[in-house]
Amino acid sequence: MTHSGWHFLQIPGPTNVPDRVLRAMARPTIDHRGPEFAALTLELIPALQRVFSTADSIVIYPGSGSAAIEAAYVNTLSPGDRVLVFETGAFSLHWKTMAEKLGLRVDYVPGNWRSGASEVELESRLSADKAHEIKAVVVVHNETSTGVASRIPELRKAMDRSKHPALLMIDAVSSLASIDYRHDEWGVDVTVCGSQKGLMVPPGLAFCAISKKARAAGGTARLPRAYFDWDGIITQNAKGFFPYTPATNLFYGLREALLMLEEEGMANVLRRHARHGEATRAAVRAWGLEIVCEDPREYSNSMTAVYMPEGHNADNLRSVILEHFNMSLGIGLAKLSGKVFRIGHLGHFNDLMLAGTLAGVEMGLRVAGVPYKAGGVMAALDSLAAAQQPALLTAQAR
Amino acid sequence: MTHSGWHFLQIPGPTNVPDRVLRAMARPTIDHRGPEFAALTLELIPALQRVFSTADSIVIYPGSGSAAIEAAYVNTLSPGDRVLVFETGAFSLHWKTMAEKLGLRVDYVPGNWRSGASEVELESRLSADKAHEIKAVVVVHNETSTGVASRIPELRKAMDRSKHPALLMIDAVSSLASIDYRHDEWGVDVTVCGSQKGLMVPPGLAFCAISKKARAAGGTARLPRAYFDWDGIITQNAKGFFPYTPATNLFYGLREALLMLEEEGMANVLRRHARHGEATRAAVRAWGLEIVCEDPREYSNSMTAVYMPEGHNADNLRSVILEHFNMSLGIGLAKLSGKVFRIGHLGHFNDLMLAGTLAGVEMGLRVAGVPYKAGGVMAALDSLAAAQQPALLTAQAR
Amino acid sequence: MTHSGWHFLQIPGPTNVPDRVLRAMARPTIDHRGPEFAALTLELIPALQRVFSTADSIVIYPGSGSAAIEAAYVNTLSPGDRVLVFETGAFSLHWKTMAEKLGLRVDYVPGNWRSGASEVELESRLSADKAHEIKAVVVVHNETSTGVASRIPELRKAMDRSKHPALLMIDAVSSLASIDYRHDEWGVDVTVCGSQKGLMVPPGLAFCAISKKARAAGGTARLPRAYFDWDGIITQNAKGFFPYTPATNLFYGLREALLMLEEEGMANVLRRHARHGEATRAAVRAWGLEIVCEDPREYSNSMTAVYMPEGHNADNLRSVILEHFNMSLGIGLAKLSGKVFRIGHLGHFNDLMLAGTLAGVEMGLRVAGVPYKAGGVMAALDSLAAAQQPALLTAQAR
Amino acid sequence: MTHSGWHFLQIPGPTNVPDRVLRAMARPTIDHRGPEFAALTLELIPALQRVFSTADSIVIYPGSGSAAIEAAYVNTLSPGDRVLVFETGAFSLHWKTMAEKLGLRVDYVPGNWRSGASEVELESRLSADKAHEIKAVVVVHNETSTGVASRIPELRKAMDRSKHPALLMIDAVSSLASIDYRHDEWGVDVTVCGSQKGLMVPPGLAFCAISKKARAAGGTARLPRAYFDWDGIITQNAKGFFPYTPATNLFYGLREALLMLEEEGMANVLRRHARHGEATRAAVRAWGLEIVCEDPREYSNSMTAVYMPEGHNADNLRSVILEHFNMSLGIGLAKLSGKVFRIGHLGHFNDLMLAGTLAGVEMGLRVAGVPYKAGGVMAALDSLAAAQQPALLTAQAR
Repeated sequence: MTHSGWHFLQIPGPTNVPDRVLRAMARPTIDHRGPEFAALTLELIPALQRVFSTADSIVIYPGSGSAAIEAAYVNTLSPGDRVLVFETGAFSLHWKTMAEKLGLRVDYVPGNWRSGASEVELESRLSADKAHEIKAVVVVHNETSTGVASRIPELRKAMDRSKHPALLMIDAVSSLASIDYRHDEWGVDVTVCGSQKGLMVPPGLAFCAISKKARAAGGTARLPRAYFDWDGIITQNAKGFFPYTPATNLFYGLREALLMLEEEGMANVLRRHARHGEATRAAVRAWGLEIVCEDPREYSNSMTAVYMPEGHNADNLRSVILEHFNMSLGIGLAKLSGKVFRIGHLGHFNDLMLAGTLAGVEMGLRVAGVPYKAGGVMAALDSLAAAQQPALLTAQAR
Repeated sequence: MTHSGWHFLQIPGPTNVPDRVLRAMARPTIDHRGPEFAALTLELIPALQRVFSTADSIVIYPGSGSAAIEAAYVNTLSPGDRVLVFETGAFSLHWKTMAEKLGLRVDYVPGNWRSGASEVELESRLSADKAHEIKAVVVVHNETSTGVASRIPELRKAMDRSKHPALLMIDAVSSLASIDYRHDEWGVDVTVCGSQKGLMVPPGLAFCAISKKARAAGGTARLPRAYFDWDGIITQNAKGFFPYTPATNLFYGLREALLMLEEEGMANVLRRHARHGEATRAAVRAWGLEIVCEDPREYSNSMTAVYMPEGHNADNLRSVILEHFNMSLGIGLAKLSGKVFRIGHLGHFNDLMLAGTLAGVEMGLRVAGVPYKAGGVMAALDSLAAAQQPALLTAQAR
Repeated sequence: MTHSGWHFLQIPGPTNVPDRVLRAMARPTIDHRGPEFAALTLELIPALQRVFSTADSIVIYPGSGSAAIEAAYVNTLSPGDRVLVFETGAFSLHWKTMAEKLGLRVDYVPGNWRSGASEVELESRLSADKAHEIKAVVVVHNETSTGVASRIPELRKAMDRSKHPALLMIDAVSSLASIDYRHDEWGVDVTVCGSQKGLMVPPGLAFCAISKKARAAGGTARLPRAYFDWDGIITQNAKGFFPYTPATNLFYGLREALLMLEEEGMANVLRRHARHGEATRAAVRAWGLEIVCEDPREYSNSMTAVYMPEGHNADNLRSVILEHFNMSLGIGLAKLSGKVFRIGHLGHFNDLMLAGTLAGVEMGLRVAGVPYKAGGVMAALDSLAAAQQPALLTAQAR
Repeated sequence: MTHSGWHFLQIPGPTNVPDRVLRAMARPTIDHRGPEFAALTLELIPALQRVFSTADSIVIYPGSGSAAIEAAYVNTLSPGDRVLVFETGAFSLHWKTMAEKLGLRVDYVPGNWRSGASEVELESRLSADKAHEIKAVVVVHNETSTGVASRIPELRKAMDRSKHPALLMIDAVSSLASIDYRHDEWGVDVTVCGSQKGLMVPPGLAFCAISKKARAAGGTARLPRAYFDWDGIITQNAKGFFPYTPATNLFYGLREALLMLEEEGMANVLRRHARHGEATRAAVRAWGLEIVCEDPREYSNSMTAVYMPEGHNADNLRSVILEHFNMSLGIGLAKLSGKVFRIGHLGHFNDLMLAGTLAGVEMGLRVAGVPYKAGGVMAALDSLAAAQQPALLTAQAR
């Protein structure tokens, strides 16, 4: 079936890429060893540092987010090292699996996929590890499979209380530039991210923000590393270059996207995502459906995962919506397959796009014959409009 | 204020241009006297003929819709000729003013800007003109300032009954490729259109579809004409060329847009516009606001003009919506200035874009403090979802 | 045949459009009655004034260059007015034909298509017109069909000497932003231009720069005018708007192109064109071919027209070059058809593009079996390299 | 300094990306888990197989060429395995260094950077390795730092003669789609490539073509692998998906580029590169400069490395050319730094672009004060024109 109009790409990433970014990427490719390219690199890195809230090194890979995960491990750890990974959902599982494939030993702290990493559990685990065998703690900040955002500052405090020297590695793939994130202030050692979510760039770039402690760990780390080696990259980056051919045109897109974030202002960006998270949850509640995330303190502002009513398959709903309403929603991952659909509300997004998105879900539920209460969109509009006019009495609109 | 996300361009044209069309326009410019360009022309003209439903000549101007209006006049009429123009709104007024500037005499049939051209009045006027002084009848098919669509087949029949030889000139600028239109079957002599509405191309191209009778009228027409002269263009078009440099890159965009219309299928395109017109009117009624068009037989499927409640200014509402919700709505034109806002729902558009559009209006009414009843968006969603599932009982969604 | 690599669009316009301009044009279309559009207009007009070297009004049409010619006539003249047009080639003929179609009387000063307008002849004609029946003098600054650039300051002085009040209308379509041009200083009344040559934008926009005297002439001018009427446009332009839908996306392209001209600096732009004109003529002479332009004072810096040797057809050469070397050259127009080919070297262009262009001609002559002396490219390189290093002895290069 | 006109990106990659590819990349990003993306993958892989001349698996990484090198190693080898790498230049050194970083032992066969891998040496080395300790032989097909193309079929025959079971790994980064390459017919086990050279796509994608034998080697290979693991990718690719987010927009570019190669026809693509290699060498010889590659059987058709005359620095020349002529040439790498410049003549390229390129070198030599004989461009034109008209006597052009 041929569709008219915009496709609503409401998976939790890749997100809707701004046309400004797409056009920037269409600039002719340049010499990656020439002065124009060097200037581009030297502009991008500080701009990324502002987004990660760090003064530390940032490394850019041509690669997906998984590339940055591998980079985090191989640059800091040795074969057989123990890594404490909190089970929060499919992406924590991905960190675990990658660690194991690389020859690390994983302590996987069980979770119910409805809540974030527990600071209590973290403190207890670390305190018990008198020998400091655990070399790294891994937490997915915003678990993209569930829409649960772990509270990193609380976790950091737990680590500090335990006086344990493990590195703190955070997956900020679906939180950066959507949910408040502070690499330095929160004492994160390696923050991993990709280009295709809050950063509003197509997939193909991965990032590591790296604390001095993490970089120092590289001195003794014995996992083999070549492509992912931080040192070579950071050294050449100082002059604006890379040890191998960087993904020039994605860099153009990234520059434009970072400029857009600065134009809007990060505080506004975060407020916008908070407003959209709130409105989406209002809609889900009005439909009488269940949000996966249990703890309001952990609600994700970048996406919302929603349980299907018993006996109804999420993939059927998603495909009805794709066919009838030209919108892509996120699938349920791993053990949530078929049970959950996910609404992305991050990146290049606004109130009317959210209204269209939620309208697509509400009409999709109806067309697919899924039981729901009408009124979700209206609840969201109430929430959005209220956010636009704090002082205005809502009673006025009668 | 910096906005994130898509701008909703919901004026009744220019419409949201598909990214495919924008990218097509970004192809390098080619030699307008070379074989590749000739092939482009020879592909475009038959494709346009299918859209206009005509086997007659079509002339493409680099110009706005007004260029095609001037072309219609100067190619068929002589100084002092009488033209019968039906007052339907600001665009009928534009035809009148242009005619007068060119030295024609206009019989302006008064109208209330809420209804279309009357076939009764037309028959009576023509029957009274025994001397056949009236050389042309002008009707704006879809009056873009009011959202009233005159019923051309009824008007044609009235002309036929009166056996009057006047040419029938139709302004299809905001109807073509949105509302059913048939140049040949309806016996239209000159159809005037522009690129920027249902054709989904940026503004800059204007079109005349020209009956044999209209072309023959050129033989005796004495208004001076040079740039707009049909003969030179049609002659050169036969080989794919133009007497002056055509707007190459807009041609690329037009080719892509026509391809998209063919992919969707014109019947589907028209059904889609009908569905969106219906849903929009459902929303307006639910808000308790008044639609400008009085006669349901004349409802426009490409746009809806809406009266503001007494004491509230449409331009204030429009600017609140632009500022808070990143959406452009159409202004009230001429005597409707400040009293009416217009919602464009034509061109590259779909259900979720319409939902976002109406959400923007509903929230805008609230933020601007305009009295309204909540529920317009919900009424529209009911209308849209029902259209997607004719067989499904709507009672199910409770 | 499928070609790899860039197409060399070396006709004398449309010229190679910069990728920056093409991408700018691919921005989404906006509301032509909104604040963002108004700001665009209010930025464009002063930037155009700088390019035309004028403080007078500039009007932008959606249209080809011919639209601006018609506008020049209908806004200033009355039926039957006499216009003095200098025969310089096919474009002077076009001005003549358009004038006649509009009901003006043309005094066509004969020319041999190898030289520019004569100031002696001009002064003599005007002095003879004691009754001041001649209302306008028309000169094509750079005659695109021949590559002859008339010397406008000399012509102006001749008019001044004759104390004749006729308007001076100049066609700067293929000279503006390539060859020095000064609307105000040279006392031009109407300068006509298009977007697709030195301005580096695709075709579709036309311009008139209008002196106060020309605007005043509109008060008594009786040619009918509607679409082209300056007053309505200039009035609305003051606030950034237009009486009809402007060609939004071409405006984006124009803004980017004007920015590029300012970045390079107009003095540099003119020097670059002078260097390329000189090098091209060096190549033509080295090939033993004849330049159409006879008088070195009138050499065009934007293009060069070249005679074919007796018995060889230019169109055959052009099509060999198009097929084998993926380059378009300009055809011989009107009486030069088949006898002349034209090399465009204006717009977005540089030394290596010129080298490629001339290499295409030199190899094309060979492949097409046209007699020539080898070495044209080498002569051009000598000329270009010398221009890059004035102080360096050329003897060094052995 | 601001430049007008096209930038000539004549490094040996990234190459000039076709505007068609750039525009394709600017399409909106889609759901990488939806049906449209799956169809894209399932179209790309067979198209890549045709380019690699293989029926074997092809894996696409978001990454640079180095990513594919690492993938080749970690998917087939174990820590301490011996790898035989032929020294041909900087890229063979890169393979060596990466192998060592990953914990492999490298037998580095010395070379003079002016000739390719020796089949005699290969046979001798393998025959001496009775214990079959050498697990892989690495050859850079076209050594990008020197412009020497090793003769893979001869090397394969030598391996066959020695009956040694080592895997054959070939770096085809700067040869694929420029110089004849046949993965299956030549019995290559792993071919490594990137997107940014003959494939005409911006950098950011890397490829491995993988023989059944290489895949089987993965069963016992013990180097840790996660991101680069072939099995997971190949399994998911069968349905059109990837284990992690692929670089969607670069895929769009790749699809367009592969379509362009098919339109031109691979035989024509190879002939074009051969013609340009020949013409470039003719120019270098005419200038009296020395080509790095010593053996005409090993001349590269994708690029030419040229020695500077004694006492002149290549980087100075390159920067004169960049500044004056808006062209980027390749730097001398590693031990050739300053001594060599490299001319890329691969990818989206044609005769006139080559003429412009060589003109830039010739004028650059002059402006930089490097001693040379004039006439290189003319020699190249002779070579190119002769190739266009085999039957035409060159004597005709006098």
